[in-house]
Amino acid sequence: MPGITLGDTVPNLEVETTLKNFKLHDYFADSWTVLFSHPGDFTPVCTTELGAMGKYAHEFEHRGVKLLGLSCDDVQSHKDWIKDIEAFTPGSKVKYPIIADPNKEIIPQLNMIDPIENGPSRALHIVGPDCKIKLSFLYPSTTGRNMDEVLRALDSLLMASKHNNKIATPVNWKPDEPVVISPSVSDTEAKKLFPQGFKTADLPSKKGYMRLTDVS
Amino acid sequence: MPGITLGDTVPNLEVETTLKNFKLHDYFADSWTVLFSHPGDFTPVCTTELGAMGKYAHEFEHRGVKLLGLSCDDVQSHKDWIKDIEAFTPGSKVKYPIIADPNKEIIPQLNMIDPIENGPSRALHIVGPDCKIKLSFLYPSTTGRNMDEVLRALDSLLMASKHNNKIATPVNWKPDEPVVISPSVSDTEAKKLFPQGFKTADLPSKKGYMRLTDVS
Repeated sequence: MPGITLGDTVPNLEVETTLKNFKLHDYFADSWTVLFSHPGDFTPVCTTELGAMGKYAHEFEHRGVKLLGLSCDDVQSHKDWIKDIEAFTPGSKVKYPIIADPNKEIIPQLNMIDPIENGPSRALHIVGPDCKIKLSFLYPSTTGRNMDEVLRALDSLLMASKHNNKIATPVNWKPDEPVVISPSVSDTEAKKLFPQGFKTADLPSKKGYMRLTDVS
Repeated sequence: MPGITLGDTVPNLEVETTLKNFKLHDYFADSWTVLFSHPGDFTPVCTTELGAMGKYAHEFEHRGVKLLGLSCDDVQSHKDWIKDIEAFTPGSKVKYPIIADPNKEIIPQLNMIDPIENGPSRALHIVGPDCKIKLSFLYPSTTGRNMDEVLRALDSLLMASKHNNKIATPVNWKPDEPVVISPSVSDTEAKKLFPQGFKTADLPSKKGYMRLTDVS
């Protein structure tokens, strides 16, 4: 039984990290955050993942998105381990904070438990500026995440947010590809919102709901 | 507050679908299943997603994996909508069953709720033959999923399962790339399990946990 899921507010816990201690809502304030857990320091998949996060850091930075890691080791362990991470992934700098949760008090509250390991899973929540979970990946310890998919999903959320959720992104969408207009938007409103125009697909139902437009 | 998460058993609900009615555990038995919800019939992102699922069907089939869709419309609506799906995505055939949940009784039990829409989210659970959730994507209605990532994650789970979770897959892993040996496996055991050998990365900590091997 998890603590939180899509749409829930992340609890405002006070956390100890490799950089400084803070309350989660202070960290989340005014930006989007990628909050991710990993099973343990000095373990192989985690080392590749945190290295990748460090290497992709500029991608998150130029989108104004913060990173925040977490595992059930203490701060000193995290700091020692960072040397391994940076050595294994050349070009990676771990500048983002990593939360220490040595007593496993935080992971049950954040839906970040691997049932087989009884430790942290590879959970990754994208948290909005309102401190609510917008999207989650819940992977077990055996499966390293895909940073390109994290970025793609983030780009979709940012694009939808920029357009007040009046658009959505189709399957396998990538930035610069067309988006669809949300069903809640009437054709009249769509003409005002999207002066560049939109194309309505001709489908057997003739319901006119598949409206594609270019917002890039 | 979600119904279920990683490691939980999917409840053995009796469901009505576009093909026939069954109990979930009977459907899950003896194989892996991709169980996914979509916000609504005759809506744009869902049409692209279910079309993609149909187009990728052979990929799931040759892995011995079943597909099972769900939304809060009735069976007749699903059947009418399938004509649109197949028209929009040429080459796609929707042969997998889609659950009808017109009274929204199932989605709260399966952690498939979009908090903004108060209807189904784009949740996708990969369910093991033991009827437990192995991995989940929880996306909101604005963000279409990525079928390549679903397949990649599935390949990782199947590979780990084949090797009794003695291996795991690194960040951004793809089939045919090296895997890592799990920390629970000693070097002595690893030499027996992986006669092809493995390479241990030389990292500053000298802890010897980063062991890569080729199992493809």
